[in-house]
Amino acid sequence: MNNKKPLILVTNDDGITAPGIRTLVEVMKEIGDVVVVAPDSPQSGMGHAITISDTLFCEQVVIKESYKHKEYSCSGTPADCVKIATQEILHRKPDLCVSGINHGSNSSINVIYSGTMSAAVEAGIEGIPAIGFSLLDYSLNADFEPTRKYIKSITRNVLKNGLPKGVVLNVNFPKLSAEEIKGIKVCRQANAHWEEEFDKRTNPQGREYYWLTGTFVNKDEGNDTDEKALEEGYVSVVPVQFDLTAHQFIKDLSSWPLND
Amino acid sequence: MNNKKPLILVTNDDGITAPGIRTLVEVMKEIGDVVVVAPDSPQSGMGHAITISDTLFCEQVVIKESYKHKEYSCSGTPADCVKIATQEILHRKPDLCVSGINHGSNSSINVIYSGTMSAAVEAGIEGIPAIGFSLLDYSLNADFEPTRKYIKSITRNVLKNGLPKGVVLNVNFPKLSAEEIKGIKVCRQANAHWEEEFDKRTNPQGREYYWLTGTFVNKDEGNDTDEKALEEGYVSVVPVQFDLTAHQFIKDLSSWPLND
Repeated sequence: MNNKKPLILVTNDDGITAPGIRTLVEVMKEIGDVVVVAPDSPQSGMGHAITISDTLFCEQVVIKESYKHKEYSCSGTPADCVKIATQEILHRKPDLCVSGINHGSNSSINVIYSGTMSAAVEAGIEGIPAIGFSLLDYSLNADFEPTRKYIKSITRNVLKNGLPKGVVLNVNFPKLSAEEIKGIKVCRQANAHWEEEFDKRTNPQGREYYWLTGTFVNKDEGNDTDEKALEEGYVSVVPVQFDLTAHQFIKDLSSWPLND
Repeated sequence: MNNKKPLILVTNDDGITAPGIRTLVEVMKEIGDVVVVAPDSPQSGMGHAITISDTLFCEQVVIKESYKHKEYSCSGTPADCVKIATQEILHRKPDLCVSGINHGSNSSINVIYSGTMSAAVEAGIEGIPAIGFSLLDYSLNADFEPTRKYIKSITRNVLKNGLPKGVVLNVNFPKLSAEEIKGIKVCRQANAHWEEEFDKRTNPQGREYYWLTGTFVNKDEGNDTDEKALEEGYVSVVPVQFDLTAHQFIKDLSSWPLND
């Protein structure tokens, strides 16, 4: 048996000082050797953005004097953090990358817009087992305590079994107390979407501008979705892939007279 | 037969004045009624970012006096452009959304980082048939002429047949002359990735910074990939989905002792 501790890269999209990543760091310190490389400012809604037309700063920082592990603050996106961690800081692939705990949901279609999940996906692309964790509570003083035992269980299972090539995990926690959470459910991404509303205003110079707002609409009635599991008080775990090919449509599409 | 012209939303990620979108606008004007809503500045590598913590400006602009159609320049990302177009400008779903023509490849794993494709995916999420077009030539004076006839063919096929729910098309053109292009091939996304290198420098104040660079590595030897088709001189068409669930792994994952 290999008793060497796993090397765990921790990142997020709410920024390196966010309470969510602090909980994740504490939990990961019980499991392995931790290195943190996280954005210096909030990156919510950044999707899988990378910084290709600007410079990147990435510097060691001390968040708590008592910490023995190293932490780095990066001016880029979550995906940038994973890239720079692997290439410039660790100089090797970590055994695991965890991202979060996000302040807010990344279930259903939110996975597409999620900076948290983009870090996990980026790690997956680089062949690193990866998990994104999110809590359905946007507040800065959200209670992350009930998530600890589930994070440990899921992380230990991933370290033990590995993940198939091209797959990472998207874990979402309901906003419930430890007693109220019913357990973990493996699910599929619900087929839901946002109905946008733009709040139109006029700035002091008379120029019109907008704030993006919206309502989450879930018409997916399946019993096997992440939304359903969360509604019922479960922790949802969705395996996520980054081969976006709609393989089931290739045959039909090939029969179209595209070359005529 | 319905002779009403289709309403076509045109967007991109290189910005509203980029030569690529200008070619796409010209081609679409031959097919339908065009409205352009595109970013006011380049948004390459933005992935599926959306603007949730900042204001959005979106104003009508005149790019060419001779144009009869309307064009809007937006301060946000490509995904923002599609949202604001549908909600605030068109006040209805267009019959088609086309994005591009991107200056540079969006084949293989690039689809994940692509602003061009995020606009198409955003339209798909909203139930609008959508296509992203990209040319494997990053230069501003790239020759988009050879792409015209293929764009027309693919667009007319999509308008005629529609696309399945949850699927959009990712079209890439090889950097070849009209005579050299061999035709269109339907493909899957090649399983390739970028090997990052960071170019480390020191700024005038003595602070270290990085430029992200990298090498594209394709170890996928399949004959049915977009990379292979492009290499052989074909236009690649990959159907892309935004249900990211790795359905094939759900059964195995469900057998893990996550709740123990």
